[in-house]
Amino acid sequence: MTAYAQLEQRFRRLYALREAAGVLNWDMSTVMPAGGAEARTEQLAALDVVCHEFITAPDLGDLLAEASDAADSLDGWQRANLREMRRQWRHETALSTDLVEALSKAESRCEMAWRVARANDDFRGVLAPLEALLSLVRESAAARAEVLDCSPYEALLDLYEPGASVARIDEIFDSYAAFLPDFLDRVLAAQATRGAPLPLDGPFARDKQEALARRLMGVIGFDFTHGRLDTSLHPFCGGVPDDVRITTRYDETAFMSALMAVLHETGHALYERGLPADWRLQPVGQARGMSVHESQSLLVEMQACRSPEFIAFAAPLLREAFDGDGPAWAAENLVRHSHRVERGLIRVDADEVTYPAHVILRSRLERAMLAGDLPLPDLPAAWNAGMEALLGVVPPDDASGCLQDIHWFDGAWGYFPTYTLGAMTAAQLYAAALAAVPDIPAAIGRGDFAPLMTWLRQNVHAQGSLLSTDELLTAATGRTLDPAVFKAHLAARYLAA
Amino acid sequence: MTAYAQLEQRFRRLYALREAAGVLNWDMSTVMPAGGAEARTEQLAALDVVCHEFITAPDLGDLLAEASDAADSLDGWQRANLREMRRQWRHETALSTDLVEALSKAESRCEMAWRVARANDDFRGVLAPLEALLSLVRESAAARAEVLDCSPYEALLDLYEPGASVARIDEIFDSYAAFLPDFLDRVLAAQATRGAPLPLDGPFARDKQEALARRLMGVIGFDFTHGRLDTSLHPFCGGVPDDVRITTRYDETAFMSALMAVLHETGHALYERGLPADWRLQPVGQARGMSVHESQSLLVEMQACRSPEFIAFAAPLLREAFDGDGPAWAAENLVRHSHRVERGLIRVDADEVTYPAHVILRSRLERAMLAGDLPLPDLPAAWNAGMEALLGVVPPDDASGCLQDIHWFDGAWGYFPTYTLGAMTAAQLYAAALAAVPDIPAAIGRGDFAPLMTWLRQNVHAQGSLLSTDELLTAATGRTLDPAVFKAHLAARYLAA
Repeated sequence: MTAYAQLEQRFRRLYALREAAGVLNWDMSTVMPAGGAEARTEQLAALDVVCHEFITAPDLGDLLAEASDAADSLDGWQRANLREMRRQWRHETALSTDLVEALSKAESRCEMAWRVARANDDFRGVLAPLEALLSLVRESAAARAEVLDCSPYEALLDLYEPGASVARIDEIFDSYAAFLPDFLDRVLAAQATRGAPLPLDGPFARDKQEALARRLMGVIGFDFTHGRLDTSLHPFCGGVPDDVRITTRYDETAFMSALMAVLHETGHALYERGLPADWRLQPVGQARGMSVHESQSLLVEMQACRSPEFIAFAAPLLREAFDGDGPAWAAENLVRHSHRVERGLIRVDADEVTYPAHVILRSRLERAMLAGDLPLPDLPAAWNAGMEALLGVVPPDDASGCLQDIHWFDGAWGYFPTYTLGAMTAAQLYAAALAAVPDIPAAIGRGDFAPLMTWLRQNVHAQGSLLSTDELLTAATGRTLDPAVFKAHLAARYLAA
Repeated sequence: MTAYAQLEQRFRRLYALREAAGVLNWDMSTVMPAGGAEARTEQLAALDVVCHEFITAPDLGDLLAEASDAADSLDGWQRANLREMRRQWRHETALSTDLVEALSKAESRCEMAWRVARANDDFRGVLAPLEALLSLVRESAAARAEVLDCSPYEALLDLYEPGASVARIDEIFDSYAAFLPDFLDRVLAAQATRGAPLPLDGPFARDKQEALARRLMGVIGFDFTHGRLDTSLHPFCGGVPDDVRITTRYDETAFMSALMAVLHETGHALYERGLPADWRLQPVGQARGMSVHESQSLLVEMQACRSPEFIAFAAPLLREAFDGDGPAWAAENLVRHSHRVERGLIRVDADEVTYPAHVILRSRLERAMLAGDLPLPDLPAAWNAGMEALLGVVPPDDASGCLQDIHWFDGAWGYFPTYTLGAMTAAQLYAAALAAVPDIPAAIGRGDFAPLMTWLRQNVHAQGSLLSTDELLTAATGRTLDPAVFKAHLAARYLAA
């Protein structure tokens, strides 16, 4: 067997174990009783350690070298697979097994403490496990940085967005932070001239919301023989490509938030389902990175499903689901609801215009924490000051402030920037799809997502990790990420009369 | 670190991985969409292989030898732990990694094919995967037998019931097969003189059944912060000791079957929950074997919850749950329902008297299959002939014949005998508990399971695998398994006027 074939065999097993961990993580967030937490911590840590030992096995470096020497005999997918194997190997060999195990356990424990702290608005209650976790994250960032020859923050970012440049992100984010104040004023002024949307009166029974969500998931292309919809504290997309599981949470006084979360996660799910089936359980068969992943959820939610065409299609289904009647349920009023912009406190409920501000705040704070420039006890105050500076609002408590998101409490420093990169990528991909297939909006207006999905399958989903993010975007849209497309989208949607 | 301490560390990780597989198996039987089957097969096979490689690591035999040499420095629990480690090591080293992987995949695939075959009453549809699986089971049995120095069937039996003797099981089963015909005639005659119970008229809404089941689980002592109740094709108890998950299935025309299944699985669950917490993730901390496990479910279901005392307690709750009224809902009539004996086709629905016949049939057939004396295409006919000989009934189709149980289709040859050993063990343990704590029946009549559970915790649950099955039973009841106690129980319950 060639070195490359041996590597494929090993990574196949490695990814099967990672998939097992994926299912356990889904379970932990959806159905696990609280008393199962410590046992689950042990299970996930054991899997993390086994995966780490797999990839850092003494002879794996030799196999990689041998396969690289014989790379001429490989085709393009195989070479890309080998490149991704090497990437992971560099990351993993930077860490000791003890650090991997300690990190895994610290993540599970801090996440459990966060759940309680968030429910009780008690930041101090999670401070100790967060300190312990950050210290290990810092250690891992330093170790990765040394191997990758970059800064510690960039090394973490590279986990979620391979090849990302902190300098480029700074440029994009600083530009948006400068653009936002005036733009937001103009959007809010334009919105004020149009008046508030007519209220949609509930209650909206949970089972009716869920039935509608399932129906619209089906319209978009979700296959329930290969996936599920469940409930969790925070919506997410988990599971594995052939069994992809999304979640939402229901508010019986307002249906829009749960429904939009479902449409968002459906975008993630269709990306996973569309990954190249021939490369399951291989590195090159995985999603490209989190900015492309987020682009797929936001393309479905923000670009397609908040379009007037889709809302015109969905309006009768909404009326039917909730016995809605009268002008409040007209498509035009539903569009106003779904395009509402405001200076809000909660990232996951934020509109497209203000969302990047939430991300910019978190990106700045997480870099400061990692560098040691922001002591954790000062995080709540720094958060509130940042919210006031960026959006002009101050959280009344930490539950709607620095405790709102799971990410840091789950060890995911370096993840947040991908949300806004994803929003910008979504705008650019959608514009390119519409240029290539002009019928897409009209088809969506008929409840037919096939033209859009065919284009996405071909240009994004089926590419797996064959190309770099920049290459993928260039192949699909003719250029690398250009934030101007996103800004143009915002202006067209939110400033037009 | 001593050799023993190193072994504890390794087995801790091994059991964490096995627990992960336990959660994945629960998921597969309860919530996994059909399209996830192939991916799950890969995940479980990868876990099986990793566990196998863990336990067959080249230096593990040396560590076991070294720890045994220093056994004088160990306490009783540690020595028992070492004994159980060695037991598992002998079993696992008998098998090659390739065989473990092939078995794991063949099991998952045959189980999936069985689900379809059973639904369509299509034995031929599962014949090929079953042949493939049996061939691998035979190979593994032969390999284990050589290491354990016993017959292939005994080697498989030893997986579920360590130390079990085929000769002793033959003796017990042959004796019961001889006892049954005349005894069953007498039971049915006595039952006929009492007349049929008054019918309980449904429908019984699923959510009402579930609410009642949860209430009674709580009465018995199930802790929902450490476990769940869900729905599956076949009731089972899965998950892990700190997150123990039971299932049932509901029939809206009759509530008794689902409810009794819940009480049964609750008995399994309380055993798991009561295992010694200090020995989690160690071999000695696991359940003793499947006959003791089944004794705990049957002790709760058959001995305690079908007693007149419990039914008198539960009757008002049943009436409340289903708006029951009149003499059909009197405790006396409910007792008649729960003590109904009949010559039935389905094992899981069978009464205590005829249940062993179902097991005896399966035990005979599985030995013949394993030995090659019963070609698989002949299984349906052999099954039907056996049912006619033992119980005087013939299944109208294979779905209610040889396709009804999952066990063989999941590779579990050698498991069936533990059901009847468990029923006999339950009778003996319950008799001993009542002799030691005479208040138990009266307490159960008040809905107070604490006296019974205290005795079981102490004498069974908290013992883990410290003792052998024979030693455990001797310590708790004064003697090894004595089938006469079970027969006396049957006579007292089913022949008394």
